[in-house]
Amino acid sequence: MPRYKLTVEYDGTPYSGFQRQDNAPSVQGALEAAVKAFCGDVITLKAAGRTDTGVHAVGQVVHFDLSKDWPADTVRDAMNAHLMTEAVVVLAAEAVGDDFDARFSAKRRHYRYTILNRWMQPVYERGRVWGVKKPLDVGLMQAAADRLVGHHDFTTFRSAHCQAKSPERTLERLEVSRDGEHVYVEASARSFLHNQVRSLVGALKLAGEGRATADQIEALLHARDRTKCPAVAPACGLVFTKVDY
Amino acid sequence: MPRYKLTVEYDGTPYSGFQRQDNAPSVQGALEAAVKAFCGDVITLKAAGRTDTGVHAVGQVVHFDLSKDWPADTVRDAMNAHLMTEAVVVLAAEAVGDDFDARFSAKRRHYRYTILNRWMQPVYERGRVWGVKKPLDVGLMQAAADRLVGHHDFTTFRSAHCQAKSPERTLERLEVSRDGEHVYVEASARSFLHNQVRSLVGALKLAGEGRATADQIEALLHARDRTKCPAVAPACGLVFTKVDY
Repeated sequence: MPRYKLTVEYDGTPYSGFQRQDNAPSVQGALEAAVKAFCGDVITLKAAGRTDTGVHAVGQVVHFDLSKDWPADTVRDAMNAHLMTEAVVVLAAEAVGDDFDARFSAKRRHYRYTILNRWMQPVYERGRVWGVKKPLDVGLMQAAADRLVGHHDFTTFRSAHCQAKSPERTLERLEVSRDGEHVYVEASARSFLHNQVRSLVGALKLAGEGRATADQIEALLHARDRTKCPAVAPACGLVFTKVDY
Repeated sequence: MPRYKLTVEYDGTPYSGFQRQDNAPSVQGALEAAVKAFCGDVITLKAAGRTDTGVHAVGQVVHFDLSKDWPADTVRDAMNAHLMTEAVVVLAAEAVGDDFDARFSAKRRHYRYTILNRWMQPVYERGRVWGVKKPLDVGLMQAAADRLVGHHDFTTFRSAHCQAKSPERTLERLEVSRDGEHVYVEASARSFLHNQVRSLVGALKLAGEGRATADQIEALLHARDRTKCPAVAPACGLVFTKVDY
């Protein structure tokens, strides 16, 4: 059973998240249907990250096994031909050994969150950014971000529905930058908890607005109490950018 | 009658172009309806450029007169409150003298065209870029562009439906650049003919693919024959970025 690793881009807007569901469109469902359409194989793929409803990806990684050998470029192009009506595209496909696992072999995951920081609602970039009206101080945001980097119990910053056994994670990078009206938050870790990036961005926004100090954000972290989490940033600003193996 | 100048952003996707129409949604119609909704005035606005169906703007400029004086920020915010369900937003409003005309006072108009140059169809940026599969040589594109800059009869590169009296225009700038998989074409002129930017981009794409030399592109220009125009680039990659007054 030859195994394939695929790098995948999608617009999360029309999907009820990555994970396959019985009665709602999903990215996983679209990809599995494209495999079936091109070669007849009924597969269940595995992904590096199961992104939420409305979250986008430009570097999601999945793997699956096929019943016969196909050139990797054929897998990519044949799947894309069947994905023309979906908001999903295969950027790259490669044949890998059966010890490769898109989820468990991942060494580091990278996300980017984009805020459009202006008084007027987003229009040209609607569905790709979070519109924040109040001017954000990126220095204050980074000062707060610095308190969150490292190994912590992130209970405050994970969904109440998070299924991970442990709330502890090592946040390797949380960087805030500005380019004109755009404020970017780049987050990297071996793995993330459910809603973690969006919860962290929600907290950084408060810091950037001057409504919470870095000390207060750190206190939220140490509270290990989900009810203390500031409003979670909306899904549309989040992009799963890359996985390191 | 106080006059207002507005800078406007819109996603052209859901509109049948800028210009008001009886039975189709338009940007002009959305703006005029927002004016009526906030102050009751029934106006006909004038715009710097009447963009086509599917063309976007981040710096379109319009003007209109209101029956009473309003603070400019009130005009902006009140209109935006009524534009929440549209893909149009007022970025700025200012009171101007009645000698200001969004169309006739314009000294220079700027457009940007974006190509996503990769084998795979666009997904995350779908509706904002033109997906071109064949690798584009930006040097060849710029060499062809250099032949098009200046004062010319642009009959080859304007729509058969163009209503301008003269096919002559002075193209002040046509610059091609690349940033990773993105190829940008920036065009500036006092005014443009109907479909001119998209027609020029269609020709530059041929040059970038190595399918037409700069000499051949120049010959198309001198032919002054619309039937010689290469395939016009799609609307979705084009953004009206700025107007100088």
